[in-house]
Order: sequence, then C-alpha cells, then structure tokens
Amino acid sequence: PDPAAISDARLRQAQLTKPPGALGVLEDASLALCGIQGTCPPRPLVRPVVAVFAGDHGVHAQGVSPWPQEVTAAMVANFRAGGAAVNVLARQVGADVLVVDMGVAADLDPGTDLLDRKIGRGTADLATGPAMTRAEAERGLAAGIEVAHLLVDRGHDVLLTGDMGIGNTTPSAALVAAFTGADAAAVTGRGTGVDDATHERKVDVVRRALRARPVGDDPVETLASLGGFEHAGLAGLVLGGAARGVPVILDGVIAGAAALVAQALAPDAVGYCFAGHRSVEPGHTVALERLGLRPLVDLDLRLGEGTGAVLALPIVQAAGATLREMATFDSAGVARKDGRR
Amino acid sequence: PDPAAISDARLRQAQLTKPPGALGVLEDASLALCGIQGTCPPRPLVRPVVAVFAGDHGVHAQGVSPWPQEVTAAMVANFRAGGAAVNVLARQVGADVLVVDMGVAADLDPGTDLLDRKIGRGTADLATGPAMTRAEAERGLAAGIEVAHLLVDRGHDVLLTGDMGIGNTTPSAALVAAFTGADAAAVTGRGTGVDDATHERKVDVVRRALRARPVGDDPVETLASLGGFEHAGLAGLVLGGAARGVPVILDGVIAGAAALVAQALAPDAVGYCFAGHRSVEPGHTVALERLGLRPLVDLDLRLGEGTGAVLALPIVQAAGATLREMATFDSAGVARKDGRR
Repeated sequence: PDPAAISDARLRQAQLTKPPGALGVLEDASLALCGIQGTCPPRPLVRPVVAVFAGDHGVHAQGVSPWPQEVTAAMVANFRAGGAAVNVLARQVGADVLVVDMGVAADLDPGTDLLDRKIGRGTADLATGPAMTRAEAERGLAAGIEVAHLLVDRGHDVLLTGDMGIGNTTPSAALVAAFTGADAAAVTGRGTGVDDATHERKVDVVRRALRARPVGDDPVETLASLGGFEHAGLAGLVLGGAARGVPVILDGVIAGAAALVAQALAPDAVGYCFAGHRSVEPGHTVALERLGLRPLVDLDLRLGEGTGAVLALPIVQAAGATLREMATFDSAGVARKDGRR
Repeated sequence: PDPAAISDARLRQAQLTKPPGALGVLEDASLALCGIQGTCPPRPLVRPVVAVFAGDHGVHAQGVSPWPQEVTAAMVANFRAGGAAVNVLARQVGADVLVVDMGVAADLDPGTDLLDRKIGRGTADLATGPAMTRAEAERGLAAGIEVAHLLVDRGHDVLLTGDMGIGNTTPSAALVAAFTGADAAAVTGRGTGVDDATHERKVDVVRRALRARPVGDDPVETLASLGGFEHAGLAGLVLGGAARGVPVILDGVIAGAAALVAQALAPDAVGYCFAGHRSVEPGHTVALERLGLRPLVDLDLRLGEGTGAVLALPIVQAAGATLREMATFDSAGVARKDGRR
C-alpha cells in the first residue's frame, strides 16, 4: 500500500463534516482503500467479481464431513445456474460470480462462466500423506495469480474470494494451526454442521497430520502438506490482487487460511485485503488475528461460497464514498468542535 | 408480526441449498422480515427512506457537548445539500433522505426535503426540570406516527431512522437509564467525543435528573421528563411503521432510546424493528439488550444521522433475497447432509 495516499486520506478524513473518528472502522477502511489504489480519494469500486475456487479433498475419506463429496460438483452447477446463496447476494450488489475449478473430483461442463484450472480430481488424503505435491501447490498458486491478472484485465476493480469444497474446513484448520502455532482443537470447528463424534475425528486428523509432518518455515511445503487446491488458488489470488493494486475482500476460514499462505510468502500482500466477515469457525478468528484484519461483518455465517465477502462489499464501497463525496467543514460552513471555524 | 408467515419462512429456509443455520443472523432476519410483511417470501425492499429527526436540547446549557448548538441547524443544511455522511451512504444504497424538524433552535428554510413538525426551539433543560411538557411529548409521538404513515403512503417500504441534535446523547442516556434501571454511569458515553471532565458532567446531569424526577411506569411522562423532541418523533415512527407492517431499521443510541419508549407503549412494535448497528455509546448496548435486538453492523460508529441504519439496509435486503431467490435442494438436485435426497 501507498503511504502517501494513506497520509492524504488521513488529512482528508479530518476535514469531513463529522466528529473525528465518528465513522469508526469505516474510516480505517477508507484509508486502506486509498493505500491499495495509491490515490486519494479512492476510485469507486464498480466492477466487483466473486471468484469461487472449487476443489475436492482426499481427507473426505476420513469421515470429516456428513456431506457426500459429490455435493461439491452439484454446488458448482448451482453456482453456474445462479441459485446458490452467493449468487443471490452477488446479484443484490451487482457482482459477477465466476467459478474456478481448481480440482473438483468430477468432469465439469466447459463454459465462459467457468475457469478450468483443474490440477487433479481432489487432493490426496492429508491424514495419510501430503495433500499435494510441491509442484501441484506451486501450480495452484500460479493459477490463482493468473486468475487475478485475468480478472483485473477484464476490468474488475475489486476481487471477492469464494470457495467450495466438501471437507475443506479440515485442511483450513490444519493450515491455520501450522501458520499460527495454535492447537488443533482451538482451530477446528464444526464446518457445515458436524456432530460431536465427527468433530473429534476432525481434530484428531488435524493433530495427527501436524505431528506426522512437522512443518518448517517453507510456506509452499506447508500448503502442499496440509492444504487444498482451492487454498493454493486463493493464496495466489491474494498475491495477484496485491500485485495489481486491487483490493481483495476475503470470505471466511478457507480464505483466511489461504491468506496466511500469502502472508508467509509476501507479508505486504495482506495490506491489500479486507476481512469480509468473521466466520463461526474458530480457526477463522485465529487466522484474522495473525493477519491483523478486523472483520467488517460478524453475523455467525458459516456457509462459505464467498457470502461473507459479498455482504462486506457495500461497507467497503461506503467507506470509499465518504472520502469522495462528503462535505468538509469549510465547504459546508459547519462549525467544528469547540466552536472553531 | 405474523406467526404464519414466520412459520412459512422457517420451512422455506430449511429447503434452501445450504446447511441449516449456515447463513446465521441472515436467516433470523429473513424470518423477521416475513413476519413484518405478513408474507413469505418477503417482498423486496426497493424504496428505502432515511427520516432524520432533528431537534435541539436545553441541556446543552450544562456544557455536555463541546459542539456549539448552532451545529444542529448547520448539519440540517448539510443534509439538505447532500454533503453529510448519511447522504453519501444513502446514495450508495439508493435511499432517500428526508429531514423532520422536530424542534431545531433556528428557523429552517421550508422545502419539500424538510417536514416541519417543529414543537419548540429546543427542549427545556432536563437538568433543571422536565425537558418537555406532557402535551409536547404527545405531540412529538403523534408527529412521528404521522410521518410514518406519510412515508408509507408515498411508497416507501422500509423506514430508516436518522437523528441530529447537538447534545442528544445526554437525554438518550437518561431515557435508557430510566427504562432499564441501569446506572447513569453505565449508559452515559462520550457522544461525539467529549473529554473526561465533560463526561463526568454528563453522568452527573443524568444521575441528578433521574433522582430529582423519579419515573414511574408512565412511558410518556418519562419521555417528557428526560427525552428530546426527536426521541418523541422517532418513537412515533416506530409505532407508525409497526402499524403499517413496514420494517424500521434503527440507527444508534438515540433511536435505541426512542425504541424503548415505543416498546413501553406497545411491546409488539419492537418486532417490526431491526437494529441497524451497535454504537460505541455504552447506553446503546444496554438498550439493545432490553429491546432484544441483535445489531447487524458493529463497526465502532458513533456519528448518528442514520449512518448505521443505512449500512445495515443491504444486509436486510440480502436476507430477504435469499428466501426469494435461492434454489432448493430439490430444484437444484443437490444431495442433502448425510446423503439424503
């Protein structure tokens, strides 16, 4: 982010017709947006897109989810037909939805509404060995970076992360634990709604994977060992968005885990991210703390797909609009606090 | 609210292509919207309006605010010129902004963008006697009810509360304390940004007023003793919105205090309200607990004007849209949890 633009934004915020600080987090977001775009006031965000990175997970074989793996492909079809929650919310705010097939365990119909970046038909089972080879993880990161460039080249000025993959809260928990040092039990949640026995199994899978393959300080190796194809793609999207100076609005725990990968590779990249929301998943709060991001929406969502990011978009847009459009004390002839003119 | 519509909404939520409960507070909001409108799925909210109730306060003479009283009228002019924060945010979501002069201590230019419901040039000083006569409080309530009907008659299908009045966090704190039994210190905040000495003065003013004029169980008398003209108007707006089956999105502590008046007069009216946001003002959290409302936005705002209500509007709209537009498991051919079809 551009420190000069942030400095300009801070000065401008102080002149707007309101008590200093009265817009709270909106003021912070307006500064961040200026830093990301390198200009103050910030440009309006008028071409939002939700990139839904989809993939399947070998760890599904461990019984970590009550949902059949085929639901990943069925939900991709639902996204493409416009019937899923993320489609409905995206229509409300004028955002496009695009699916990126990173590794769904099914053959998907080609189409302009789908980017085929399939690396495999689901990852390997992280409970029994690395989920990906290092080469696969690198391919996933590169695909995400490339998708970011493609979307920005198409004119999109804000990138929202989405994700779909039955079982993907388990690799997310493993990534969060690996990158933060948190205990498996502290970061493993109930995903789309698992019972106590399944939850215990998830925690055990994460703990054993971390023990069996201790991660060093190599983020790509960590991603390969524990992550999913969609995590690799999402981490790349963050890096690509940052490289292009375009804001990235993160969704929930899957995006948060992926952003930890991006942060480990390029700490500055997080400065281009907004945390769309705080998921119910406990690992998401741990990830957000490490990322240093405050969520804009906090409504007990745990759906994924990008729903939390889409709900946050109007807030980011509103933050930018205050800097562009609000009157100043001088222009409006309003007296300041303590009667100063 | 209509229990049959809520019941229909609950059944419909269970059929949507997502794990049960995965949309968190959005699901609760979608049910509430159906109950308010008496139909499922709910109608889209396409004609939002922010009604900014403005008034001045005799208690300003006690030095409870660092801002000159003339700022109330200057900010009303700013609203009418479109330069204030609430205007900017309202434009982002397509909401109209209308000022209701309940009692600004200045002569305001007439115009179609202003509803003149002026009861007086500011209330009396609540530190030295009742802020309003009972008749004034009743006139304020009636004006708010009438404004609600007027706005609904004009085609508005969702009412957002706004407020403007230098010094109005002091009467708000007094009302919250009176209606909840909370201590003055627990509900009195720093408003638009007061220093320690001013804050102590505010707490003292609230405490002395509550002691000098103990309130019984007469909500109108309580409103008259401690409130402001805009509180009376806002309480009336809530009652009128409820009577017309139109959702009311509350802004911050001023609206929260007013909603306590409405709740005391007609407990069912709160069922027509959404809490737009949680203000930094401590009295707002106390009010929300008593109202039983969970705020949709929680971003450390403390500006008022309706800004928190406007930020929440897209969330309420999104909640309704999920029930209207999402595919069901059957229609999308997606398998359910545990593989059920």
